[in-house]
Amino acid sequence: MQFEVSTLAVVRSTRGIAIDDHWDQESCEIVLEDAVPSEALRGLTDFSHLEVIAVAHAATVPDTVTWARRPRGRAQWPRVGIFAQRNKDRPNSLLLSTVEILDVRERSVLVRGLDLIDGTPIVDMKPVFRWTGPRSELRVAQWSDELGENYF
Amino acid sequence: MQFEVSTLAVVRSTRGIAIDDHWDQESCEIVLEDAVPSEALRGLTDFSHLEVIAVAHAATVPDTVTWARRPRGRAQWPRVGIFAQRNKDRPNSLLLSTVEILDVRERSVLVRGLDLIDGTPIVDMKPVFRWTGPRSELRVAQWSDELGENYF
Repeated sequence: MQFEVSTLAVVRSTRGIAIDDHWDQESCEIVLEDAVPSEALRGLTDFSHLEVIAVAHAATVPDTVTWARRPRGRAQWPRVGIFAQRNKDRPNSLLLSTVEILDVRERSVLVRGLDLIDGTPIVDMKPVFRWTGPRSELRVAQWSDELGENYF
Repeated sequence: MQFEVSTLAVVRSTRGIAIDDHWDQESCEIVLEDAVPSEALRGLTDFSHLEVIAVAHAATVPDTVTWARRPRGRAQWPRVGIFAQRNKDRPNSLLLSTVEILDVRERSVLVRGLDLIDGTPIVDMKPVFRWTGPRSELRVAQWSDELGENYF
């Protein structure tokens, strides 16, 4: 099945090009599209964190989908499937980031830790509830810890 | 901007109709679509949790988008914007669930806590890293704690 999704908000970030790491250095605002009324943000001030679903619009779409690869192409990390990594070059080009809400404004949300470049289209946002994250102890691949060392 | 997303996997669940709460009672498997090779799941055994992005294919799409509403229509909860709740009736109909991985099989993943009914199309899955969740203390609306009381 195929589905169509529309841009509901756009990223305004001090980072304009797709480079890795140090995302906390950037200042970032999520701005509603004109067609979206301000009331869509109503009540968001009661929450501290937001899950943001975006489209990697600037990623190069290759002719054939890569279903497995080494994260960041690094030889020291294992070749893993696309569903075992969060890489932007993936089928459907969907991205997911959890960010801290700094300020909710009339037509935008100021956030911290959004790893998306300026102009990235956002297709949904959901508040983090106390019970929507992992409910049991986390276990992760070692390469993902190493990848995170300079991420923010 | 508009984007097209395709089904990459499908939910096989013991729950076939859209009713609320008690999701831990259900048994649930995420099955890859035929076009998706098994290697897309490679390396997932190193992770305990998965973030699942799906499409609420069974939700009724109203003629006009509701940008704010009371969660579950309950009079005792405040009227909040669509980006301040996780309701399935939303623009783009995208759903997001964090689940525990019970078993990674050749063409499927057995999971716990997936709040999606049988047949729901999945458009992406990403492993939870140690650093991809909230990095500061959570603050949530009281109604969201109340909504979660019988959710799983």
